[in-house]
Parts: sequence; structure tokens; C-alpha cells
Amino acid sequence: MDEKVISQAVISRLPRYYRYLGDLKDEGVERISSQELSRRMNVTASQIRQDFNNFGGFGQQGYGYNVDYLYNEIGKILGLNEEHNLIIVGAGNLGRALTNYSNYENRGFHFMGLFDKNPEFVGKKIGSLEIMPMDKIEDFIIDNGIDIVVIAIPKAGAVQVADRVVKIGVKAIWNFAHVDLNVPDDVVVENVHLSDSLMKLSYNLASR
Amino acid sequence: MDEKVISQAVISRLPRYYRYLGDLKDEGVERISSQELSRRMNVTASQIRQDFNNFGGFGQQGYGYNVDYLYNEIGKILGLNEEHNLIIVGAGNLGRALTNYSNYENRGFHFMGLFDKNPEFVGKKIGSLEIMPMDKIEDFIIDNGIDIVVIAIPKAGAVQVADRVVKIGVKAIWNFAHVDLNVPDDVVVENVHLSDSLMKLSYNLASR
Repeated sequence: MDEKVISQAVISRLPRYYRYLGDLKDEGVERISSQELSRRMNVTASQIRQDFNNFGGFGQQGYGYNVDYLYNEIGKILGLNEEHNLIIVGAGNLGRALTNYSNYENRGFHFMGLFDKNPEFVGKKIGSLEIMPMDKIEDFIIDNGIDIVVIAIPKAGAVQVADRVVKIGVKAIWNFAHVDLNVPDDVVVENVHLSDSLMKLSYNLASR
Repeated sequence: MDEKVISQAVISRLPRYYRYLGDLKDEGVERISSQELSRRMNVTASQIRQDFNNFGGFGQQGYGYNVDYLYNEIGKILGLNEEHNLIIVGAGNLGRALTNYSNYENRGFHFMGLFDKNPEFVGKKIGSLEIMPMDKIEDFIIDNGIDIVVIAIPKAGAVQVADRVVKIGVKAIWNFAHVDLNVPDDVVVENVHLSDSLMKLSYNLASR
């Protein structure tokens, strides 16, 4: 099973399962059938079973899924049982908004540092994080075991920042800049292109 | 062709084509082959041809694509030739970050109002927008022909805001709250679930 390549479409759906299962746990639900999960999530029961089969199934036919077990297993698949140390490059509104997502902390994502090229920002505190200058990025990454870099600066500087952090061994970038980053194959990039998302909304509104 | 249902996977790729074609235009490139576009975008030429065939092809075999024409046609498909009036609900860091995306203005997206439930925010200006109280949302939407509502508040209040704006006729919601909105079939929702995106990055890092 470990050798199987899971499609990115399936991967994209896992966080949503994880979110719904977390809500069910909070509601005190212990078992759920794929039919009931299907109804809540507005996807077909067959889709749910197919998705879960990618990871060995998780359930016994006719008994439904154990919510707690399924939640933990999907969490493990998503790598949420591991700890991650992150820095954010860019202390504008977007970078600050991301800093405040304190619920990530519980899932093992620790925001350790915030960097900006604007000298007026440097030294200011956003929550518990002090804004540091860009020339400290490399040292900070090495000293603090940073494994994920969040790029929250405009397009122009993003490529250079990506090159810098990849050069010293960072293997994961969460990219909000409106540009595709060219990184080696062993580096993973997850893009959040907000204007692409807005254009998709525009399309769906126009063709409604 | 108008009757054909285009898959969301194809739609999701259109903004990226639009972005690359815009860059090519800025570089003064007039024609481009699917091979060259393929190389730049790191997708197969066959994928590009298949995607464009959904919309009639755009190109003459052997002559490549006219960049300006293709850019404009994809823009039209995305509905970017129409004007959209938006409000943002939530004037925290995320809402403020979205307000500052002034490049949307050029593509027909006009951010007209910003709303927050925090009385201390009300009356303050973010850029050219004054923050207004939540009870003014309905009147503002009607008076200003708002067609897209951006939800940039936490999960708890998001469902209620969506219900309110749908009730008075809004047909498009750009949702940043960490919850799926239940809206009628004729309302389009584009979700930006940031923590889903971070989990996907975590998965890809773990299974690298």
C-alpha cells in the first residue's frame, strides 16, 4: 500500500474528510456509515468508499466507520502526527493573517518566525512573533529546524526567496505569490493563487 | 459549444493560462506554439490542446496561438470582460489583505465595501474603504449592485452571513471561512480553505 501513488485529487479531498470527522468527534458521534457521511458532505457514498480504499478501507462492511479511528488515521496520512516548524516571509496583511491562524498549532504546525524587507516593520511584534530582517532567514532556518517556508510577498521577490531557502535545504513551500516557483523535484510547493480562485468564481458566476 | 459542460478541472487551469499569456503579452510575444507554452507552463502540449479544444481550439494547426487573441478569449470565458462589485465581510488581517489586492481592479473586480462586527473597527479606513457595521450589509448590497460577497470571518459567523446575503439575491460567494456553506443550487461558492491547503502540503512533504 505504501508503494501506491495516490492521485492529487484524492489527497485534495482528505483534509475535508478530516474536517468533517473532527466536527463529528466534537459532536460525540462514535460511528458513522458511508451513507450518512455522504449526506453530510454532499459527495456520493461510492466516492467516499473509493477514496478510503486508497488507504486500505478503514471500515468494516455494514458496521460503518469508527469516527475517532478514521480521524486519527487520516491525520496520520496527512502527516499531522509530525511536528512542522514554519516561517512566514512577508509581514503584510496576508502574512499577519496567516500568523494568527493559531488553530494550526494544535495540528503540529508551529509558526516560529516572520520576516520582512521593510525596515520599519523589523522589530515589531505580531502576536508572539517579532518581525526579522530578510538577511536573517538562512541562519534562522538552520538554527530552528524550519521545514516549511510560507511565501506571502508579491511576485517580484518570491522566486528569489524560494531559491534562497531551497538552497539551504528547505523541502516545502506554501506559496501565496502570484507566480509559479521553479524548484527541484524533491521540493514540494503548495500554491494558493488567490486571483486564480477569484477568476474561477467569476467563470462559474458567468456560466451559471 | 455553449451547451457543453466544461469540467471544473479544466476551469481550474484557465486562470493559469491567463496568467502566463498575460506575462507573454508583457514580454511582447505575439505568437506561441503549444510546445513552447507547454515548456513554459510545465504541462504537456497535448493537455494544452485538449483544454483549448473545450472552447473551440483558438489556434490554427502549425501557426501557433495568437497571444493577444488567446488572452482576450480566455479572459472572456472567465467572465473578466464583465464588471463585478464586491464587498468583504470581515476586516481582520485577511479581509484587509484582500482589500489591498488592487490588481483585481483592472480585471473588473471592484471592492466597494468592508464590513465588521467589531464596533472599534467601524468607521476606520482601510485604503479607500471605510469599515461599516454588519447591519448595513443588506442595504449596501442592494444600493451598490453587489454581486460577489467575500466571507473573511471565522467559521462561527460565516454560515449566517451567507444565508443573509443569499436571501437578498447574491449569487456568488468567495468563502475563506473554514466551513462548507449550504447554499441553493443557483448560488456559486468558491472556497479557499487555507488549512486544507496546508494539510495537503504536509501530506506531500511526508510522502515525498
